[in-house]
Amino acid sequence: MPFDEIFVADAMREAVSDQAWLEAMLATEAALARAQARVGLIPAEAAHEVAEDCRAERHDLAALAHEARSAGNPVPALVAAARSDWFHEGATSQDIVDTAAMLVARRALQLIRVDLDGVAATCARLAEEHRETPMAGRTLMQRAEPTTFGLKAAGWLVAVLDARDWLLALRLPVQLRGASGTLASMPGHGPAVLAELARELDLEEPVLPWHANRMPPATLGAALAVTAGALGKIALDIELLAQTEVGEVTSGSGESSSMPYKRNPVEAIRVRACARRVHVAAGLLIGGVPEHEHERAAGAWHAEWTPLSEALACTGGAATAAREMLEGMQMHSERMRENLGDSDPAPHVAAAALLVDRALGRYRG
Amino acid sequence: MPFDEIFVADAMREAVSDQAWLEAMLATEAALARAQARVGLIPAEAAHEVAEDCRAERHDLAALAHEARSAGNPVPALVAAARSDWFHEGATSQDIVDTAAMLVARRALQLIRVDLDGVAATCARLAEEHRETPMAGRTLMQRAEPTTFGLKAAGWLVAVLDARDWLLALRLPVQLRGASGTLASMPGHGPAVLAELARELDLEEPVLPWHANRMPPATLGAALAVTAGALGKIALDIELLAQTEVGEVTSGSGESSSMPYKRNPVEAIRVRACARRVHVAAGLLIGGVPEHEHERAAGAWHAEWTPLSEALACTGGAATAAREMLEGMQMHSERMRENLGDSDPAPHVAAAALLVDRALGRYRG
Amino acid sequence: MPFDEIFVADAMREAVSDQAWLEAMLATEAALARAQARVGLIPAEAAHEVAEDCRAERHDLAALAHEARSAGNPVPALVAAARSDWFHEGATSQDIVDTAAMLVARRALQLIRVDLDGVAATCARLAEEHRETPMAGRTLMQRAEPTTFGLKAAGWLVAVLDARDWLLALRLPVQLRGASGTLASMPGHGPAVLAELARELDLEEPVLPWHANRMPPATLGAALAVTAGALGKIALDIELLAQTEVGEVTSGSGESSSMPYKRNPVEAIRVRACARRVHVAAGLLIGGVPEHEHERAAGAWHAEWTPLSEALACTGGAATAAREMLEGMQMHSERMRENLGDSDPAPHVAAAALLVDRALGRYRG
Amino acid sequence: MPFDEIFVADAMREAVSDQAWLEAMLATEAALARAQARVGLIPAEAAHEVAEDCRAERHDLAALAHEARSAGNPVPALVAAARSDWFHEGATSQDIVDTAAMLVARRALQLIRVDLDGVAATCARLAEEHRETPMAGRTLMQRAEPTTFGLKAAGWLVAVLDARDWLLALRLPVQLRGASGTLASMPGHGPAVLAELARELDLEEPVLPWHANRMPPATLGAALAVTAGALGKIALDIELLAQTEVGEVTSGSGESSSMPYKRNPVEAIRVRACARRVHVAAGLLIGGVPEHEHERAAGAWHAEWTPLSEALACTGGAATAAREMLEGMQMHSERMRENLGDSDPAPHVAAAALLVDRALGRYRG
Repeated sequence: MPFDEIFVADAMREAVSDQAWLEAMLATEAALARAQARVGLIPAEAAHEVAEDCRAERHDLAALAHEARSAGNPVPALVAAARSDWFHEGATSQDIVDTAAMLVARRALQLIRVDLDGVAATCARLAEEHRETPMAGRTLMQRAEPTTFGLKAAGWLVAVLDARDWLLALRLPVQLRGASGTLASMPGHGPAVLAELARELDLEEPVLPWHANRMPPATLGAALAVTAGALGKIALDIELLAQTEVGEVTSGSGESSSMPYKRNPVEAIRVRACARRVHVAAGLLIGGVPEHEHERAAGAWHAEWTPLSEALACTGGAATAAREMLEGMQMHSERMRENLGDSDPAPHVAAAALLVDRALGRYRG
Repeated sequence: MPFDEIFVADAMREAVSDQAWLEAMLATEAALARAQARVGLIPAEAAHEVAEDCRAERHDLAALAHEARSAGNPVPALVAAARSDWFHEGATSQDIVDTAAMLVARRALQLIRVDLDGVAATCARLAEEHRETPMAGRTLMQRAEPTTFGLKAAGWLVAVLDARDWLLALRLPVQLRGASGTLASMPGHGPAVLAELARELDLEEPVLPWHANRMPPATLGAALAVTAGALGKIALDIELLAQTEVGEVTSGSGESSSMPYKRNPVEAIRVRACARRVHVAAGLLIGGVPEHEHERAAGAWHAEWTPLSEALACTGGAATAAREMLEGMQMHSERMRENLGDSDPAPHVAAAALLVDRALGRYRG
Repeated sequence: MPFDEIFVADAMREAVSDQAWLEAMLATEAALARAQARVGLIPAEAAHEVAEDCRAERHDLAALAHEARSAGNPVPALVAAARSDWFHEGATSQDIVDTAAMLVARRALQLIRVDLDGVAATCARLAEEHRETPMAGRTLMQRAEPTTFGLKAAGWLVAVLDARDWLLALRLPVQLRGASGTLASMPGHGPAVLAELARELDLEEPVLPWHANRMPPATLGAALAVTAGALGKIALDIELLAQTEVGEVTSGSGESSSMPYKRNPVEAIRVRACARRVHVAAGLLIGGVPEHEHERAAGAWHAEWTPLSEALACTGGAATAAREMLEGMQMHSERMRENLGDSDPAPHVAAAALLVDRALGRYRG
Repeated sequence: MPFDEIFVADAMREAVSDQAWLEAMLATEAALARAQARVGLIPAEAAHEVAEDCRAERHDLAALAHEARSAGNPVPALVAAARSDWFHEGATSQDIVDTAAMLVARRALQLIRVDLDGVAATCARLAEEHRETPMAGRTLMQRAEPTTFGLKAAGWLVAVLDARDWLLALRLPVQLRGASGTLASMPGHGPAVLAELARELDLEEPVLPWHANRMPPATLGAALAVTAGALGKIALDIELLAQTEVGEVTSGSGESSSMPYKRNPVEAIRVRACARRVHVAAGLLIGGVPEHEHERAAGAWHAEWTPLSEALACTGGAATAAREMLEGMQMHSERMRENLGDSDPAPHVAAAALLVDRALGRYRG
């Protein structure tokens, strides 16, 4: 909460804001009505009425949030505010909140991917440009045999590509079980509405509703934690290389109020702070899987919302900061060479280049 | 983020808000100037100037937050906005942010304690009133020998008292090392300023600055996690007792939009959701201890701010909801007796009463 | 450590034992020599010599473990004990330990999969048999509209299938970077040896060595946590259904020393205990990603070994216990019906059956 | 599990071994009988019989462990093996296991404290000896104003003293509620037996049994995590100072098989690996608090045993390694001075000395 503008860019802050959640819930209600109309469960007109109710400007966010307290979730207040009798027809609160969560996640993931693409592109460029730039390998925090900066960047690249592939492969399913848990509240049309709702929102159609089988948020959490972790590893390396005594890169726009000559690696710091926060938020999502009782959990579900937003926002924060960090970084190849000591880098450069090419091959597909 | 009004009461949301952090930072800057004036390091007039700069309404929170991005913390922007040359004299950003964190924590802890007192009082009342109300003991989720509801409440009580005692015993130290890390920036007066600053803010004077020795936030986190956990255990028991088939308590204001006859244990749900969130936020604070490099960490420090606010806010959320839950709960003693089956509760009631008295003795001090 | 025989079956205990790790390291060294011989880096005879050194009975596990202390890993002691000069040729300790970890993981995963298959088969059978067995749905720990036991089992099934698919899709890569980090220690043949080593051990050939890019153990950890979580959710439901007052299933071989009439749900308890342990062990693996410095981490790597074994062993423990739990469980359909109250289950049964069929369709592929 | 001799010294491995747990359980049973005899609940002779049954050599650990599987804990098998009818009189399994856990913890804590004392003594010596040894302060991983090595060591010292004080202040309570949960199984004597049992074992007498109110293991876990964390912070600093380019300390006995000139900071690595493991094990203990149902948890309790052993063992491992690390470390004061650059350290040395003296004052009490 305090000054999160430092860590999370405005677009991402918006993407996981209360307003974004509200809009996602309304989009879900509207899509549900359209889906129900399409399969003939409600009149076509009803869907239009519901769409009208789903205009975000009709809803007072602050009032809604306070009313949500007594129900434990915001949907009943949303229903109370609607005029159409078809609003939320046959649905249950969790249908709306979970589907909205997937919509919020998708929007946030799109932002994350853009920055991850930027990170990957810069890593690839660095790997290529520094394919033959020797530097000290360092194991167990001690100087070891030479490697190249290209290979280091190639290692970052492959981890980021792995993370990005995972994020892209994530299945974000709609949620729908209806008021009764079996879709019986949409008699004769349950599976059809499920399929249509998925199509409407361009989300995946799950085999079954997943109200208490929480693989989707858990897997999402795991993927975000690993993504932020891969970015955090890059930031850690850069912080280490930017140490005054090492001096192999200069990174960071950060000025010190008390020491004007100092360059603080602020972007790397932001990446690492975000990665730590994603890890614990994702831990709640993963650790929640065995705690969801029966058909809907009494607490474990409600605990997910903020950590999900936090995990998305801070993965985004890490990705944005990582991109800025890599794009703004200055390399000091001559210092890298000095730090090598007497080792002859030539055989290592040759060997490393083969590995760099493998990574670039993967990048280029 | 999404609809946190459900979980955290307005007073607590305010207590950990950006505005509260800003005010705590300004209070720290003002107190530092007063402390410095008192020991003769700066003129008395300077402290007045600084006090003027520390009026919160002079600062534009949103602008400040965005400017904070480039430094990685909000203090440099605060300094830039100040008019007095004595503002932030000899201090470093972390002095201000860490001390402010302790002030924010103190205010939040006061709110928490009020609710914990309420929880303890209700537990004590229940323990006393139900000193001889037999009910089934339940071990490993199976009915076991009889116990009393009084003893169950007494168990909750003792855990809450343990938690409260821990919170009350927490040491919240000021932070001060100065621009240079050794208090050399306040030459000849370092320790004196440290002592005065502690006195000004009524915080503890630490033996040493703790910029990278993070026992204070870690211990605070642990105490919050255990507190929220003790409350979560009560909520879990109540959810279990309120199950339709058990029916020994009725709890909850929660109405279901789809099933109007249903009473959802919304307060218990809020407690449990909050307890899960505190656990992971506190985990970051505890897990950060070994990750703070040298004299100030490059990421592990920055990662603490939101989780600290979250741990405080959600412990408060758990305490408020637990109080509401216990105060609003209806007991069904006759159902408790029915669920006992054929067991003769008399010897258990007698034995349990001795234990209840021990707990009440502790409560009454 | 204490009495882990309670939780982890002997075969799994063996699979992650020190002996298993030793054998996996020796298998890696032997395979490396064969791979090097095949590409012409060492004589064919050398591979035979190394194979001789890799007979586990030549090594004294206890002595090895103690010698390993000074190096921080067991490989140097292994090398010291070998007679052939070709043993560990051009390799580094982490090549061996990481590849061995993947071999240990594979063996453990095979055991896990067998039990998961058993769990899935029983879930599928229950879903089918109880396709029309009505029971109370329960949301927020309160009785809600009817569902069927078949649909509940189908929900478990789909989560277990998701988990199993993930485990089956996991990529377990060999590790090889050589003494120098660039495969330069196997000049001219690095990538070829990497490919041959992967083939020899039937592990995946990674794009790059992953010594400090820890996606493989992190992803493995995440998959294990989610798998154990899915099993834990089943166990939680069964514990709740087996409560004395609910009485819809009887589960558990557990006898109580003090209360002989009691049936404790021991298998479910074991599942849940294991799931909790997997979660935290996996958390270390996931959280390690951003903490691996440069080309090999000074601590974060070494921290992985026990948690990896723990996560594998306890996922196995959860899977075995879950299989036993489901196979030994007795259903009480009549009690399920009684607990429904007055609700007419017919429309819910019909609707649920459609969903059950979707799950069974997925199961049958 | 794999090669834990690397991380945990033999004495600590023994202290948390299955054998140690067995002996602690038997010590509890014997003490319970003595306590019961003293208050007149059983004949004095009975206590002698029970004492005979409590000779560890009478029990086959492996057989016991396997039999424990069906009950979910080892006590019923222990009872079955006893000859005296007074063995386990009126007790429940958890009484024995929880009290044994506290005994195991106490023994392990004694080992930890010895090493912590060693760590504190060396930190104090370093603080004193290097009271005027200037070195670069480093903030955000960049060189900052000068500090002294004495002040750095003083910071470590204070954190270690905080941790040690916490460990020393921990309350380790006996556990006793009896077969029935209310001490009714020891009619008329319950509280007296509880008090005597505490006296017999020199453990604290709790206000109430804490079978499902898990403050004791949670607080223990928190204290261990923070202790291991404080040690991990020292190790991190030393790894950073020992970096080749920094060269301000030499640390570590670790030799590299492939690079004989290299000195790996093995002790620091062991500390950091242990700290990471303690953190997650402790997390389970802390996170368990809200998950213990009713009078005994069905899973959350059973999940505690291995993590408790792991947290104790690895805190011990961290403490031992930290002591070895600090005692074996070589300081390079001249390099520290070189790394200062042009800064005049004099004012910083003077200011730091005042702080060092505060820390030493606290150390000397």
